[in-house]
Amino acid sequence: MQLEKYKIDEFNYAQQAAHTRKFEFLAEGLSNVEDVLQKLVDFQIAIPSWALGTGGTRFGRFSGGGEPRSLEEKIEDVGLLHSLNRSCGAISLHIPWDIPQDYQATKSLAAQYGLTFDAVNSNTFQDQANQQKSYKFGSMQHTDKAVRQQAIDHNIEVIKHGIALGSESLTVWLADGSSFPGQLNFRKAFQNTLESLQEVYAAMPDNWKMYVEYKAFEPNFYSTTIGDWGQSLLLANKLGDKAYTLVDLGHHLPNANIEQIVSLLLMEGKLGGFHFNDSKYSDDDLTAGSIKPYQLFLIFNELVEGMDARGMNHATDLGWMIDASHNLKDPLEDLLQSVQAIMIAYAQSLIVDRTALAEAQQNNDVARAQEILQDAFRTDVRALVAEAQVRAGGASNALQLYRQLKVRENLIQERGLKTVSSGL
Amino acid sequence: MQLEKYKIDEFNYAQQAAHTRKFEFLAEGLSNVEDVLQKLVDFQIAIPSWALGTGGTRFGRFSGGGEPRSLEEKIEDVGLLHSLNRSCGAISLHIPWDIPQDYQATKSLAAQYGLTFDAVNSNTFQDQANQQKSYKFGSMQHTDKAVRQQAIDHNIEVIKHGIALGSESLTVWLADGSSFPGQLNFRKAFQNTLESLQEVYAAMPDNWKMYVEYKAFEPNFYSTTIGDWGQSLLLANKLGDKAYTLVDLGHHLPNANIEQIVSLLLMEGKLGGFHFNDSKYSDDDLTAGSIKPYQLFLIFNELVEGMDARGMNHATDLGWMIDASHNLKDPLEDLLQSVQAIMIAYAQSLIVDRTALAEAQQNNDVARAQEILQDAFRTDVRALVAEAQVRAGGASNALQLYRQLKVRENLIQERGLKTVSSGL
Amino acid sequence: MQLEKYKIDEFNYAQQAAHTRKFEFLAEGLSNVEDVLQKLVDFQIAIPSWALGTGGTRFGRFSGGGEPRSLEEKIEDVGLLHSLNRSCGAISLHIPWDIPQDYQATKSLAAQYGLTFDAVNSNTFQDQANQQKSYKFGSMQHTDKAVRQQAIDHNIEVIKHGIALGSESLTVWLADGSSFPGQLNFRKAFQNTLESLQEVYAAMPDNWKMYVEYKAFEPNFYSTTIGDWGQSLLLANKLGDKAYTLVDLGHHLPNANIEQIVSLLLMEGKLGGFHFNDSKYSDDDLTAGSIKPYQLFLIFNELVEGMDARGMNHATDLGWMIDASHNLKDPLEDLLQSVQAIMIAYAQSLIVDRTALAEAQQNNDVARAQEILQDAFRTDVRALVAEAQVRAGGASNALQLYRQLKVRENLIQERGLKTVSSGL
Amino acid sequence: MQLEKYKIDEFNYAQQAAHTRKFEFLAEGLSNVEDVLQKLVDFQIAIPSWALGTGGTRFGRFSGGGEPRSLEEKIEDVGLLHSLNRSCGAISLHIPWDIPQDYQATKSLAAQYGLTFDAVNSNTFQDQANQQKSYKFGSMQHTDKAVRQQAIDHNIEVIKHGIALGSESLTVWLADGSSFPGQLNFRKAFQNTLESLQEVYAAMPDNWKMYVEYKAFEPNFYSTTIGDWGQSLLLANKLGDKAYTLVDLGHHLPNANIEQIVSLLLMEGKLGGFHFNDSKYSDDDLTAGSIKPYQLFLIFNELVEGMDARGMNHATDLGWMIDASHNLKDPLEDLLQSVQAIMIAYAQSLIVDRTALAEAQQNNDVARAQEILQDAFRTDVRALVAEAQVRAGGASNALQLYRQLKVRENLIQERGLKTVSSGL
Repeated sequence: MQLEKYKIDEFNYAQQAAHTRKFEFLAEGLSNVEDVLQKLVDFQIAIPSWALGTGGTRFGRFSGGGEPRSLEEKIEDVGLLHSLNRSCGAISLHIPWDIPQDYQATKSLAAQYGLTFDAVNSNTFQDQANQQKSYKFGSMQHTDKAVRQQAIDHNIEVIKHGIALGSESLTVWLADGSSFPGQLNFRKAFQNTLESLQEVYAAMPDNWKMYVEYKAFEPNFYSTTIGDWGQSLLLANKLGDKAYTLVDLGHHLPNANIEQIVSLLLMEGKLGGFHFNDSKYSDDDLTAGSIKPYQLFLIFNELVEGMDARGMNHATDLGWMIDASHNLKDPLEDLLQSVQAIMIAYAQSLIVDRTALAEAQQNNDVARAQEILQDAFRTDVRALVAEAQVRAGGASNALQLYRQLKVRENLIQERGLKTVSSGL
Repeated sequence: MQLEKYKIDEFNYAQQAAHTRKFEFLAEGLSNVEDVLQKLVDFQIAIPSWALGTGGTRFGRFSGGGEPRSLEEKIEDVGLLHSLNRSCGAISLHIPWDIPQDYQATKSLAAQYGLTFDAVNSNTFQDQANQQKSYKFGSMQHTDKAVRQQAIDHNIEVIKHGIALGSESLTVWLADGSSFPGQLNFRKAFQNTLESLQEVYAAMPDNWKMYVEYKAFEPNFYSTTIGDWGQSLLLANKLGDKAYTLVDLGHHLPNANIEQIVSLLLMEGKLGGFHFNDSKYSDDDLTAGSIKPYQLFLIFNELVEGMDARGMNHATDLGWMIDASHNLKDPLEDLLQSVQAIMIAYAQSLIVDRTALAEAQQNNDVARAQEILQDAFRTDVRALVAEAQVRAGGASNALQLYRQLKVRENLIQERGLKTVSSGL
Repeated sequence: MQLEKYKIDEFNYAQQAAHTRKFEFLAEGLSNVEDVLQKLVDFQIAIPSWALGTGGTRFGRFSGGGEPRSLEEKIEDVGLLHSLNRSCGAISLHIPWDIPQDYQATKSLAAQYGLTFDAVNSNTFQDQANQQKSYKFGSMQHTDKAVRQQAIDHNIEVIKHGIALGSESLTVWLADGSSFPGQLNFRKAFQNTLESLQEVYAAMPDNWKMYVEYKAFEPNFYSTTIGDWGQSLLLANKLGDKAYTLVDLGHHLPNANIEQIVSLLLMEGKLGGFHFNDSKYSDDDLTAGSIKPYQLFLIFNELVEGMDARGMNHATDLGWMIDASHNLKDPLEDLLQSVQAIMIAYAQSLIVDRTALAEAQQNNDVARAQEILQDAFRTDVRALVAEAQVRAGGASNALQLYRQLKVRENLIQERGLKTVSSGL
Repeated sequence: MQLEKYKIDEFNYAQQAAHTRKFEFLAEGLSNVEDVLQKLVDFQIAIPSWALGTGGTRFGRFSGGGEPRSLEEKIEDVGLLHSLNRSCGAISLHIPWDIPQDYQATKSLAAQYGLTFDAVNSNTFQDQANQQKSYKFGSMQHTDKAVRQQAIDHNIEVIKHGIALGSESLTVWLADGSSFPGQLNFRKAFQNTLESLQEVYAAMPDNWKMYVEYKAFEPNFYSTTIGDWGQSLLLANKLGDKAYTLVDLGHHLPNANIEQIVSLLLMEGKLGGFHFNDSKYSDDDLTAGSIKPYQLFLIFNELVEGMDARGMNHATDLGWMIDASHNLKDPLEDLLQSVQAIMIAYAQSLIVDRTALAEAQQNNDVARAQEILQDAFRTDVRALVAEAQVRAGGASNALQLYRQLKVRENLIQERGLKTVSSGL
């Protein structure tokens, strides 16, 4: 399904008066509106190819309809999102679920939607049909060198696909770990992992980045070999300048202060990117900003502060991706909600009065520092985000338009009710 | 220190244009403005007498200055807060820290500030100087009947003070529990507690309520005898119609869904009241809304829904109290921030489109239901709260005026720098 | 595969000297050996039919081999376990995964292995192939009465199967809940659930029990409608005398004091039964006793104390079941380890010096109370468990014999390497 | 109070038959008894000077009697413990609570009890009476260089005391952090801390070690500047070869896998030492091994494995300290219980069949690996520990003798009932 531009224009036209009222009210109270708008326009969040179908839990899955049946349809779905909000200008592929058959055709298709290829993702947490060795007891940590080699080779293969598509980064998430005390020698598991990653690292082009993702637990339930930011950073430092830590919001122990981790990784020059989602209990993979929107804002507050302190480009110097599971909602609606929440948090962090904050911090004026952050967070910046998206060619309310246009109904008609997207 | 009304008027006059711009913008988008404003005017949050001094942890305390040295000065402090925001029209006393010497004088003083006496609080978690028996191993759960009797007698004494002051409820928080496996027979501890509470219950006037507070842990570190809402409800049901559960936000295990607990307690007709605060790790006793403002909103969302379903009066049918500790900030500033956060959350919950929400819930339209709640939460309702407070005679920005008037500096001058308030 | 008795005898004979040395040493230090042995012999733990195949997570599953392909083979597997340790004399079926075709034949088969049918389990957390209505948004809580009716009918169907097989209890675990704020009206969800359960309850024979299981989260990630023991108890009380709470060790928020919950439920006469497993992070479904063996002991300590206080029969008055997932280990080995850990914890709790403990508790002698429990826990009771199992006709070390006999290799030969058991 | 040796001999004589029976039974089943015994004899756990008095929480404190009133009496108390179990041969002082007046006299007194001086501890988390600057907003992280300098100077002062007493390590625990979002610039706080530590580091003699302790939260409730092992390791690496990470068991987020952290820190050559205690909820400071004895064993399992892999001396190459609070029990009894639990865990880890474990790990035989660890843990090694302590001149059951000798009653008689020990 292709979204004609005129439908967006029609929608925006109908919304214009209301939008203008809100935007002008808001703009009047802000000093840096144009700068903020440009940053919002530039900011693009990659959509992972596996998030376009209905997700599930170990207890089951309740499929929706009209799910993409191929890589092409996945690109089409992301293209659709991007047409609507102009904030999803990239797709993050997952191998082997999305192996392109014809690189040129795939690139053309993406270009047609204005999409680039963000980080490519390897998968060594499942066994594929024709696989020689099993990852049951880990991949890069495995006690058997042959298994490790298989995992290394797979990652190198993924890099090749990425190069062909114009991607410039590899995300490595390892499920490796153990479920019972005694199962693993932690030290050897770590060293095997390091050596395996070193071989993959060596195969990366010079302009590539490796994102080393960490996770506290699941699918292993006693230990994870890259379990927290400390372990990821240790690996990234040992690997070299092209290796970075990737932070997934859901991959932490209860109550972890993620914004502090972000700040310190930026300080060390080792923050690579983000997987956005939200959670209440563990790695719930819920819509970004749906449970703890203030935390999301606080993280962006550190990102903006830390990137500015290093003179980094917000839009291009870190990898921004969503990594959520859509068990109950229409995946496309869910993604639109996630993107919106991320854009709101980013916008709020851009209007923080940093001079006043720095001064309050210097004077230990705790109440004032809190006021400054809450002032930004309590500001209704939705019109700011809408204005940026409209200026970039999108709709002033992407989700509303999506529903008006009955996109899902159309997709079901095109693709059928019982399609199942590849992926988790 | 008395706050003259003209100072508030002067302040509001200076802020008027800016406030009006915001309020009118906001009001234009709302359908029930006057109703919301009236509810905000009526809503009063009790300030606990122990929260007016600097708090601390077991590692130490860093005193501020100008702390109230007597019950009279505590009342004066709450009066000051109430003058500023018109939302703190009650004080919650803690016996034995606040034993009134002359009931009539105390009542007059409070009335002069427009304050009433909310729930009175007993203390059986510390040993007082002249106490016969020790609460080291518990009070109402104690294996020794003499200790239990002492705790019962103390609570009855507290009720008497409350009656004399016009209070109509007793909050019972028991630190009782155990720190090591084996220390307690859980069942007997529960039954002793029940029997003790029954004696206190019998001593309460008919128009009184008993609030049975629960807490997951601390100061006992293995079990707490009234440890969760289930245990509190069990006790409240066994005690009778005048007994209710009191919910303190910080008194839960990690990740507990407090809004669901609130909803179910309302369903059972057994929710008595609230202790507001916020936390990241455990019972951190931080400023309300400073860590998880969306959770605070979700709780109010259930309160409004559940109270309306039962035809309850928001302002009078539940007890609303702050219970925080002010370790780093000026206690009065901290309380103003807490009250503001609570009023904002309440205001947001009042503008939720309940018809649309009920419809979305009925249709399992999850994305829509989320949109409806987030729409209310993302709305900047500060001008609504300010308007209500101004209409009630307060300042359009209480904290800002507090700072402008240099209230703390005045209090230090009056009371001295090294005062230490009674309490924790 | 059938296990001939002589193989057990041969094994025991070979182990006899070593076993006797240990048992006699242990027995010499105990006063109530024969009583303890009899209780251990009588104690039987039900094996759930779904635990006989390899489990997995939402990230995938790594199958083993020789998994049971039918209800008959599941019974055979449990029979095998029971032959080995004489402590697994019951099987707990899960409908629709285990619908018997011929009740008489199924009962005969079970009887042949000395097995009875423990609680039957319904499943309304997944959609089955030919199902009319979807449980995507819940079953008994659903806003649509037709969905609720379907769930009710299914449960009544399950009861019928149970009656035919001689089962006397129904375990109801509902995944019902919500993943996003706003999705559910908590109160209505609770009331719908209650009304649905009432219809099922009415269909139960008088001698049956209903076990109402609770779970904090997963597969729903914002709220669960029967989320903690308080909610389960509320339902059980409203349902009537045949309804009880079932405790699954993994279904709690972090740090919950499960042993206290057990004690209070026993006090209320509302503890129905147990699902044993262990966990480090959330509902990890690990081998019982593999992570927190002291917690398992403390739970048994309360069970023994509480049941004795009510004059209950340890073996028959509560339902004892394992509910674990075997992702990495041979399921049969894993179950043998779980049963062994449970028997050890039970044995340790039987040798606690209860008179001394009661006295220490009465005197608040905390150090002494801790010593008494730790004395029992630190005692190596494995020879006691072995003696009981040998006396009952089992092996003195079931796991060792299982490996010696190469049971898994035999099962693979019989059933094939690529079988997949029905279930999760 | 001095403990005459003949009383220990008398006690051991009376216990001898029972002890010998147990020890011989145990020894018969072990291959490396003499080696284990020697390691147990050599293993010494430092007692912190602040743990000899009754502890408390922010809610209050319930004093015991006979608490040490001076540094001399603290040394006397540790000497008493060491006489009883011969496993507490060191004391860890806390400045400014334990400033020695006469180094030579203090050293002589300690030597008389066979005690050495373990790590000295600085305190910048409280304000002392005559202090120039306040640590309310941190010490080494402070925005004001003058406060940082005060903290640096204090630490250098502590080192001087340590040198004079023969200590060779400094433990730095910083409470520094923040309680509200916005309060701190995380990066600057980290860098200030690093620079401050560098100055202290420079003042340490070459043979000294600096232990950088971390803690997740409390007394700050939003962020801690040295909050986890990753941050501590980052600092230790930047500081140099003499800086190490110190692990306190209670200072972690819920469910953290501490044994894995230990293994990785050993791998990096950066594990410095331990603070032993136990907890259920947060930093509960309970008796070691009283809540999660299996975790304590698993930690020792990694310690033994990792130290052996690096050829380290168990007794001397790491710092072993207790850091608990004794709120309910007699502190000396509590410490005896902690030491006993630690010795048991250490003994169990010494009898793990490491060859078999390595083989099971290599083959991913998860069930077998679990069996091997559980076999050691389930073994009742108390007679092994007792034998070692008797051989070293201690009692076969220190706690029992302590009670028989009525030590506490004697101390109360000597020192009075209302003494309050300096410290928390």
